[in-house]
This record gives sequence, C-alpha cells and structure tokens, in this order.
Amino acid sequence: MSTSASRDDDFLASALVRISPETPDPDIFLKERYESSFYRVEEVPLESLTDWRGGDRLIHSSGRFFTIEGLSVRTNFGPSEHWCQPIIVQPDIGILGILVKRINGVLHFLMQVKMEPGNTSLVQYAATVQATQSNYQRVHGGRSTPYLEYFLKPGRGRILVDRLLSEHASWYLHKRNRNMIVEVPPDEEVPTGDDFAWLTLGQLRPQLAHGNVNMNARTVLACVSYAAAGAPRINADLGEEFHAQVIASHSAGCSDTDLSTEMTWLIDQKEIFTLDARRIDLPEMDEWISDGQSIRHRDGRYFRIIGLSVEATSREVGTWSQPMLEPVPGNLVAFLCQRREGVLRFLVQAMVQPGLTDRLELAATIQLAPGYQRGPQDLPPLAEYLTSPVSQIRLDSVQSEDGGRFHRADTKHLVIELPEGHPVDAPENYRWMTLGMLNRLTHSGYYVNVEARSLMACLL
Amino acid sequence: MSTSASRDDDFLASALVRISPETPDPDIFLKERYESSFYRVEEVPLESLTDWRGGDRLIHSSGRFFTIEGLSVRTNFGPSEHWCQPIIVQPDIGILGILVKRINGVLHFLMQVKMEPGNTSLVQYAATVQATQSNYQRVHGGRSTPYLEYFLKPGRGRILVDRLLSEHASWYLHKRNRNMIVEVPPDEEVPTGDDFAWLTLGQLRPQLAHGNVNMNARTVLACVSYAAAGAPRINADLGEEFHAQVIASHSAGCSDTDLSTEMTWLIDQKEIFTLDARRIDLPEMDEWISDGQSIRHRDGRYFRIIGLSVEATSREVGTWSQPMLEPVPGNLVAFLCQRREGVLRFLVQAMVQPGLTDRLELAATIQLAPGYQRGPQDLPPLAEYLTSPVSQIRLDSVQSEDGGRFHRADTKHLVIELPEGHPVDAPENYRWMTLGMLNRLTHSGYYVNVEARSLMACLL
Repeated sequence: MSTSASRDDDFLASALVRISPETPDPDIFLKERYESSFYRVEEVPLESLTDWRGGDRLIHSSGRFFTIEGLSVRTNFGPSEHWCQPIIVQPDIGILGILVKRINGVLHFLMQVKMEPGNTSLVQYAATVQATQSNYQRVHGGRSTPYLEYFLKPGRGRILVDRLLSEHASWYLHKRNRNMIVEVPPDEEVPTGDDFAWLTLGQLRPQLAHGNVNMNARTVLACVSYAAAGAPRINADLGEEFHAQVIASHSAGCSDTDLSTEMTWLIDQKEIFTLDARRIDLPEMDEWISDGQSIRHRDGRYFRIIGLSVEATSREVGTWSQPMLEPVPGNLVAFLCQRREGVLRFLVQAMVQPGLTDRLELAATIQLAPGYQRGPQDLPPLAEYLTSPVSQIRLDSVQSEDGGRFHRADTKHLVIELPEGHPVDAPENYRWMTLGMLNRLTHSGYYVNVEARSLMACLL
Repeated sequence: MSTSASRDDDFLASALVRISPETPDPDIFLKERYESSFYRVEEVPLESLTDWRGGDRLIHSSGRFFTIEGLSVRTNFGPSEHWCQPIIVQPDIGILGILVKRINGVLHFLMQVKMEPGNTSLVQYAATVQATQSNYQRVHGGRSTPYLEYFLKPGRGRILVDRLLSEHASWYLHKRNRNMIVEVPPDEEVPTGDDFAWLTLGQLRPQLAHGNVNMNARTVLACVSYAAAGAPRINADLGEEFHAQVIASHSAGCSDTDLSTEMTWLIDQKEIFTLDARRIDLPEMDEWISDGQSIRHRDGRYFRIIGLSVEATSREVGTWSQPMLEPVPGNLVAFLCQRREGVLRFLVQAMVQPGLTDRLELAATIQLAPGYQRGPQDLPPLAEYLTSPVSQIRLDSVQSEDGGRFHRADTKHLVIELPEGHPVDAPENYRWMTLGMLNRLTHSGYYVNVEARSLMACLL
C-alpha cells in the first residue's frame, strides 16, 4: 500500500481537530457564500436546448461533454434479466482533487463552496478542483479552473492519493474519475479564493453528517485511511465509542493474506454473475418515450432525461442549459455493521451494475433504487433491516449525487450496527469486511462502487 | 503483495533445477505423446459448421461458447483513428491453472501435453487445467476436465497465484481468464494422467525458449516472481549472466513509492488516450466480406474468420468443428532492455487495444501486427531496433497464441539488450520498468497485456 503510516496518522490527527483558528465557522461560511451568489434553475424541454440535438443519441454540437445513448442490459444478477435504459456516455476522465496543507501542524483540506444545478440544497462543500477534461480544456470558453495546476503537474506538491475510481454505474457507462489528494509544503503560500476554506477532517465530519459535502468530494475523502494509526485515542461517549470502533476497523483484517482471500472470493463472484451491456440507439428502446420534452419510461420507471436551464454567478460560465438525469426518488444505501471477532465489520455485496468497467464491484449491504423495481417483489435481500430500531442507527442522512449530471438525486445514507452475535442470513455474494479491507480494495482499482464509497466517507 | 518471500525463493530454486529424476526427458515426452495421438485439422467453409449460424453475428446453436460480432473502433492511439473489425465475444471467465507440488524439496509443475487445433506445432505443454466455463460445465457433453477440482474449490491445496488477467485484446472483447497456481502438500498423492508430467521451472525454461509451451501456460507462468529471492547465485557464463540480471530485476525498482509513481503515470496515459469501442452487427462492417466461406477484409487486412474441422483422440470430444480467427502472419513482440542505474529495465509502452477492459495496458516495446498496418508508414515507434545486431539478442523464438481460437497465430518473440548508456528516444507513453514492477502491476489487475506477459514468461 502506498499510503504510508505517517499519512494515516496525519489524517487521523486532522479528524480529531474540530475547531481551527484558520477557518470561519463552516456552517456560517457555507451560508454566507450561498447568500452572496445568485442561482436560478428551471426545467425546460429537451428540444429547447439549442446546443444539443437528439436522434439516435443526445449529443452536444461540439461533440464534447457527454452523450446520452441507449443501453440493452442482460444479467443474471438481481430480479430483472433484461432491460433497456438510457445511459450517460462520458469517456473522458475527470479530476477530483483536494489540496491539503499542514497548518499549525494539522492537515487542512482546501474545500470549495460550489453550486451544482442538480442539487436540492444547491450549495455544498466540494473538492478543491472538480473538472472534466472538457472543463479544464475550456471547451465552453469559460474561466479557467483555479488550483488545477496542482493536480495536472503536481511537482509543487506531494501526491498522497491518486486513484482512478468508478462513478455511478446505473447512470454512467464505464465512467471513471481521478481521485487525488495533493499536499503542498507548509511554507507554500496558497492564495485562498473567496469560495474556498481550509477545513480539518474534524470540521468536515459534521458537514458530511449533514449532507453538506458533495458527491465528488465524498469519493475523494473515501480514500482517506486511518490504517496505520493503531488504537484510537478517543473518549468513549456513545457517538465517540462508535467512531473509535470505526477507526480501529481501518487497521484490522487487511493483511496481504486477507487481501488474497478476498480477491479469490471476488473472482469467484465474477465467474458466477454475468453482464452483457450493449449500446443501442435511443429509438431502439421501445418502452421509452422521447417527445422533445424529455426521455422517459412509459410507466415512469428508472429515471427521466430532462433539460435544465441554469443561471448563476459562481460558475465558470454564467448561464447555460444542459440535459440532466432525474431519478425516481427514494434511493437509499445502507451498511449493516457488527462487531465480529472483536472488530467492526461491514456487510458488503458483490453487485453487478450495467455501467461498471469490470462487471461487478462491492456495494453497500442494501442499495435500493425504486426506479429499478417493478414492485415490492423486487426489494433486495436484507431490506427488512431498514426498519431497525433507532438505537442501532449510527448514521442517517440524506446525501446528494453529482449535481452536475443528476437532478434532485438525493440518496438516504444509513449505517445500522447490529448487536454482537446477532445472526444475519445473507446470500453467498455477501461478505463481512473491515474498513481496512475496503480501503485496500479501493486502493487496488475498480473494487468498491461509488455508493459504498460515499458511505465510507460519511464514516470518517 | 501476497506472494510471500518463501514462495519466490521456492520458484527460483525450481528454476535452477534443470534435471529431475521424477520426469522423463521433456523433449522425448512431448514427442512420444504427439506420436501416440491422432490429429487431423482441416479448413472448411464457415457455412458448413452445422452448429453455428451467421447473420448479425456468428453464434453457436446452444448460445454458449462464444460469438463473433462486429466492432466499430475509434481511438487517438496509433496510426488509424477509426476502423471496423470482427471480434470474439466470450464473456465467461476461463480457468488456467497449474498444480505444483514439492518433490524432493523442489517445486514441480504438473504440465499437460495438449493438442490445440490452431497451433502450427499442434502439441505443446499446457497448464494442468485450461477450461472455459462452457468447458467445465460440460456443455459439449464430453469428458470431464481432470484436476479441475483443485481449482474450483482449492481446499486441498494452497493458492499461490489467483489473478484475473486480460487476454488478446485485438481479437477478444473484454476477455479475461483466471490465472491460478495451486500447491498441493508434498504428501498428497496426485495421480498423474498419461498426458501429464511434473516439470521443474528449470526444465520448463528450455521448453519456453523453443516455443513448446502454449499461450495459456505462459500467461500463468508470467505470474511467477523471484522478487524476494535477492541476489542470484548463478555462474556467469554469457547466457547465465543475462539470467542473473533478469533475476535481479525481479526484486528491484518495485517499492510502494515506485508503484504509486507508475500508477500516476498510467492514469496520465489513460487521460491522454481515448477508446470508443462499439459492438455492431457483422453486416454493418462495409469493408468486410462474408460469403459463407469465411469473413474477411476486402483488402486481406487484419485476419480471417474461417471454419476448422478437427479430429483428435486426446481431447474431451473426439471430433468437432468451430470458427477460428487466422491473423495475417508476421506478428511480433519485442522488449528492448538495458542496464540502467545498475538494474536491467524493460521499455514498456501504454497501448490502447480495442478489446481491453480498461482502455489501455502496458505492452512490449514493439508490438507489431502486419494485418493492422496499411503499409510501412504504420510501423510502430522504435521498429528500427528490430535489426539490432545478433550480439544484442537475448531471446529469439516463435511462440503460438491460443490454439483453441486462433489458427496459425505464431508470434515472434524478441528480447534485445542495448548497451548500457545507449540513448533511446522513446515517445512519452513509454517507460523503463524492472521485472519487479511489471510483476507488481500484473498482480494488481489489468495493467500488463498478454503479449507482454508472454515475453515475461519466456524470460523466467
């Protein structure tokens, strides 16, 4: 593993600092930035998007950004063997990068307050940089992306994290982003833009808990490991006792031998489950309606592709319009966790999703998307745990998906801790893993899906 | 890394044992097995394959085995920006497994003499087990696969290697196989079938050099590492001096920091190069002719899809016929290597191939496929080194590709050692790496393509 012991220690130290003299109150700062900008977001007919044209696929006049195409999916995973759906095709690799710096000896993360048109709450903490290739090559002719130079040629900083990780594979085809954390030396002057603030992990944790950190920042933060930090040094009130267990779980059950065992199990799963995803033209999807207003399923299932008109003062371009994917509401991800053999472990499943690069990745215990269900008979295994007593709930918050592509895509995040010894009857494609193992697998490539990584970030 | 020091030592010890009392002379054994069997291989019209039907794609009546479909490829890598070609689609994951056992204290590999209808030399040493899922689930109703049980539920042995690795990505779409080495305890009785022999790595090395080891065995053997074996203990005549350098290269330049650096460089390459591979119907490829005899390019480029009728006594089924891919002859892979900073390093390139799961992998310095070239203007960079003086040639042999799918697909393998200090002017997507680094990357997933791994096996 390339994450050295000292970095893990640094991350944990930052997580334990809840107030920093360097930073305004994060809640107030967020509110101020929100009030200092103007936003207007409006749904418009797809056919009114002047730079986009439909037909076999929905495409921008420049040929850049992304396309929306049809996908024919066949799999032996889950309740449906075959379906068609639109999918976002965006083959370029975006950069999601957070700049960190040691201030008064403690790592601070340079977070940007950012508007995303699709978000219900509109303004959130984002990574220092989130840029698609079209974005940072300035296809739209807008302003340049601040701080981008630290991530393109990171000669001025030290790379702590650099990983290519999957994005939402129910909505994106083979989409990957580059997740980076780059540390600048303590003596380097980094000018701080109006929308930016240096926050410790300890300051970010409540923001994560309240849904104020956007998806792109969460997937970067999910790469943070406390693995080498050893035994936690935290007072044991109820909330903190769970956090102490979380920290301990970062360094347990993730030896080289453990990793080999999990890899063998994962290859077994890839042998068992099939996925055949074939790109087709939009009009070939006979259950879907495309009438100039939107692209939607005839029974209102899955999601809609709509147009969005946006006016804002805080983005690279002041006004623009674009297609957006708006899911059927009610999405949820949940981890069941439990102390097993003295360590907190999380129940993950090998899950096929149509847009994954390598067929399946590890997902949360329960990943529920009502749009993909025909009815209650399609509820996933273990859904009965969603009604667990409140005394077992360790996290319950609503988090947004990427508001640059998805409209009002809010996902309920739950972490449920089952009593030690409580038997759980899970199917064969489910395994108990420590956070240390999930960190190592995340480090190795396309092994943990973005929904599970979002939960991992909320557990920091 | 999960390959422990002791295993690496065991592999190296086996590589240094050239004669084993347990084994008949490997050359004689191969010849005897060849003579004891009967084979007849004949090209037949595609339309005469009674169980296969054409149309939008070429498919078996059972729906199993594999299909041959059209692929439309766009990329900014290499001389052609766009082309169409047929591609073999075989989504199931095959098992390539070698059983090893300590005999008289030395690791022996259970190798099978196997006929593959496509091979020029017909009979070669193969892995203990090479089985597609269709194969071992006995779709063809044939004999069961011997020794398969050691790889399906390896409870009786210890897994030394278990990796999902890419196959030929110019000819296969997203094909992966499971590469396994499983060790049985020294006291376990393993009945040895007529076609099987226990060979040390030292016995396999000359067989590899002479092209007597098939592609499936080579990709498994490429997972063997001498990384932890430290300084080599070999007499320094000319051939052995190079081998000593090879062994030293297994344990150099592959620290965690080195790996992170290479991963960052690899992600850079994935940002730079694009690949859009879209499955289409065979008749949509307007430069291709399909007339019942074969599927072929109108100018004779790329490869042909032909029918093959096979009669044999040593396979699961005695007679069968199937489609085969027959490339334009003249394929070649070559490593340039050089002592740099005291260690032997190999010049690899980040190469896009249409069937790769993740866009690009590391390839040999020169990978030449005349069928994909329109003329001399399409020769790859550094091709001028192919005429290096014979004093610099460390390996020059002809190796077969998988004879179960490819007909007369022989690939010349070259390793050329440049004098220390000789400057090489390579493009930006080329890097010098030690074998230790290539081993670590192979261990991590889809990072080293099968052509380069085949060369690595020949260097053992």
